[in-house]
Amino acid sequence: MATPAGLQLRSLVKKDGTLELSLATVPTPDPKPDEVVVRVDASPINPSDLGLLLGGADATTAQRSGSAASPVVTAKIPPEMMRAMAGRADQSLPVGNEGAGVVVAAGASPSAQALMGKTVAILGGAMYAQYRVMRASNCLLLPKGTTAAEGASCFVNPLTAIGMVETMRLEGHKALVHTAAASNLGQMLVKLCLAEDVALVNVVRKPEQEKLLRSIGATHVCNMTAPTFMNDLIEALVATGATLAFDAIGGGKQAGQILTAMEVAAVRSAKEYSRYGSTVHKQVYIYGGLDRSPTEFNRAFGMAWGIGGWLLTPFLQKIGPDAAQKLRERVAAEIKTTFASRYTKTISLAQALQPSEIAVYGKQATGEKYLIAPNKDLA
Amino acid sequence: MATPAGLQLRSLVKKDGTLELSLATVPTPDPKPDEVVVRVDASPINPSDLGLLLGGADATTAQRSGSAASPVVTAKIPPEMMRAMAGRADQSLPVGNEGAGVVVAAGASPSAQALMGKTVAILGGAMYAQYRVMRASNCLLLPKGTTAAEGASCFVNPLTAIGMVETMRLEGHKALVHTAAASNLGQMLVKLCLAEDVALVNVVRKPEQEKLLRSIGATHVCNMTAPTFMNDLIEALVATGATLAFDAIGGGKQAGQILTAMEVAAVRSAKEYSRYGSTVHKQVYIYGGLDRSPTEFNRAFGMAWGIGGWLLTPFLQKIGPDAAQKLRERVAAEIKTTFASRYTKTISLAQALQPSEIAVYGKQATGEKYLIAPNKDLA
Repeated sequence: MATPAGLQLRSLVKKDGTLELSLATVPTPDPKPDEVVVRVDASPINPSDLGLLLGGADATTAQRSGSAASPVVTAKIPPEMMRAMAGRADQSLPVGNEGAGVVVAAGASPSAQALMGKTVAILGGAMYAQYRVMRASNCLLLPKGTTAAEGASCFVNPLTAIGMVETMRLEGHKALVHTAAASNLGQMLVKLCLAEDVALVNVVRKPEQEKLLRSIGATHVCNMTAPTFMNDLIEALVATGATLAFDAIGGGKQAGQILTAMEVAAVRSAKEYSRYGSTVHKQVYIYGGLDRSPTEFNRAFGMAWGIGGWLLTPFLQKIGPDAAQKLRERVAAEIKTTFASRYTKTISLAQALQPSEIAVYGKQATGEKYLIAPNKDLA
Repeated sequence: MATPAGLQLRSLVKKDGTLELSLATVPTPDPKPDEVVVRVDASPINPSDLGLLLGGADATTAQRSGSAASPVVTAKIPPEMMRAMAGRADQSLPVGNEGAGVVVAAGASPSAQALMGKTVAILGGAMYAQYRVMRASNCLLLPKGTTAAEGASCFVNPLTAIGMVETMRLEGHKALVHTAAASNLGQMLVKLCLAEDVALVNVVRKPEQEKLLRSIGATHVCNMTAPTFMNDLIEALVATGATLAFDAIGGGKQAGQILTAMEVAAVRSAKEYSRYGSTVHKQVYIYGGLDRSPTEFNRAFGMAWGIGGWLLTPFLQKIGPDAAQKLRERVAAEIKTTFASRYTKTISLAQALQPSEIAVYGKQATGEKYLIAPNKDLA
């Protein structure tokens, strides 16, 4: 018995600089022997989804048209963003990195059949859709009693948090700094570092974020907007010995400030003057772009430093498939504790195309995380 | 028979923000059995010497006092530079990374005795002095017929040029970009890359620098001040496949421009659209600070990138003492060809303390390289 066709959210960047979001009705293929069909019940809007979803468009220009059942939203993409969009122009692309749902059809193989009726977490794009065909071996079976909403964010944030701690170990650092630390990912990292006995310096922007992180066990929380920020940060770096930071912000001066504070902390514990500054290697990895403005730093931190991009996928490739699978199984086992996510709101596919909702989730504000329920509110 | 006392240039940063340069008369110790006394006849002023020599002082404030035989020069250090000077405050420090001269006294060991009367190159600080005691094993014997002036720059620039090519190989890149490429170091790198069949993209600021580099065999030379610069750079990167740059400038936008151009070149040869940009790792190492202004970049180059500091000493430590010694012997053998240096002017120790000379050598301008002859013009 074939699975019915389903709605799939599509993002189209037109060469004229227009973004068009729509819901396409797409047939659901019959699963091959080693495949299953997952009814996607929950899929988060992560910052890493927004680039593909919104194509750099200015959310304040969003306009809705089409019918209630088949809405279309258009928005303007600033010319300076269009250069980066050349590779995807005029292609209607599905969106959504990860999600969870129930297996509603399965191919003939025993491993596929074993998943029938089970709730699984999946990764691989095109999750903002009613149905997603996946290889059975790529489904992460969730523990009994786990809902799709609870399991929707099994990959991007949990594996990124683990990736940060593992990168710290692989590259010989002994503690971490994290910016935008009150995010869902930041809260996970606090819990993970507590569990692994890793010292973590959390950088936030608001007193209530500091309070939130302390309430879940964070020891070092520095508020960027406090007049004492640089001193607070230096003291936390001296206390922890952190020489590696993961920065979600990207733009502005904070990457350089962190390196400067690390240098001051390193020089304080050095034995003699070195004209090139401390010989301790200080590293900031930029893994997000919450601030799109330029990155600026004054190199007041010696010569032993690096700033670079960091992405989850190359990290997983580096550790290899077996190690990566173990990490995924750990996430599934701790999905209600260490790796639990919180969402502000659950919306349908049609609501994801409401300009008023785009205005909220497009901001990537800490504490405004959305979950899409693709099978909710269907006519 | 003891070697006489000699003059030694001293740099002193006072806590009140004053730089004081002077000539101290220091005794020359008798060499231990495995040591020699080198009469330093030539020592270059490298950009890497200027930080220690001038302590961040504003050369335009330099004032000379003292006698002709015992001159003193003072200059003001801007308050924002003083923070980095805290570790050396109120210590009178000798200066001069490298030099060459004749062995005038030797300890009893055969290896020290074997160097008597020979011209050697040496590295290790305190070279702006009439005499320098060194371990015989740390002296690089120059080929017969090599003058001290020819051998004065055997270490910093030649080993840095070699270090760039070796770093390229160690980190899996296949071609290089170099900025401020018309410098002594840049000219060496052109010759070295020709000898090693490594493609090199040279970035300069003036048409006459472009001409100079082409005259010694450079193929790719891009002028930063030309309106076509970004396109020229992209074409050179496509032609060479260079994904590693060494940047002597540090401040400003060129490190980011190079990464952006590398990304455009990488995307042009990529097979399909990737939302995170090219997966090719693009790296800029900043090894100098000709422009002290902040570094600024807009991250329009995907996620696979890095910017970091690069220094010669950690590179030599990484390859180990045997490999480093082989590199030194290669430099000595090719000191009149691949690794030849050119100097604008040769000055005495007393002239090095002339405000008019400090104004010139303190600028670190390409084509204004000075050599100090510590035994020249002595009363």
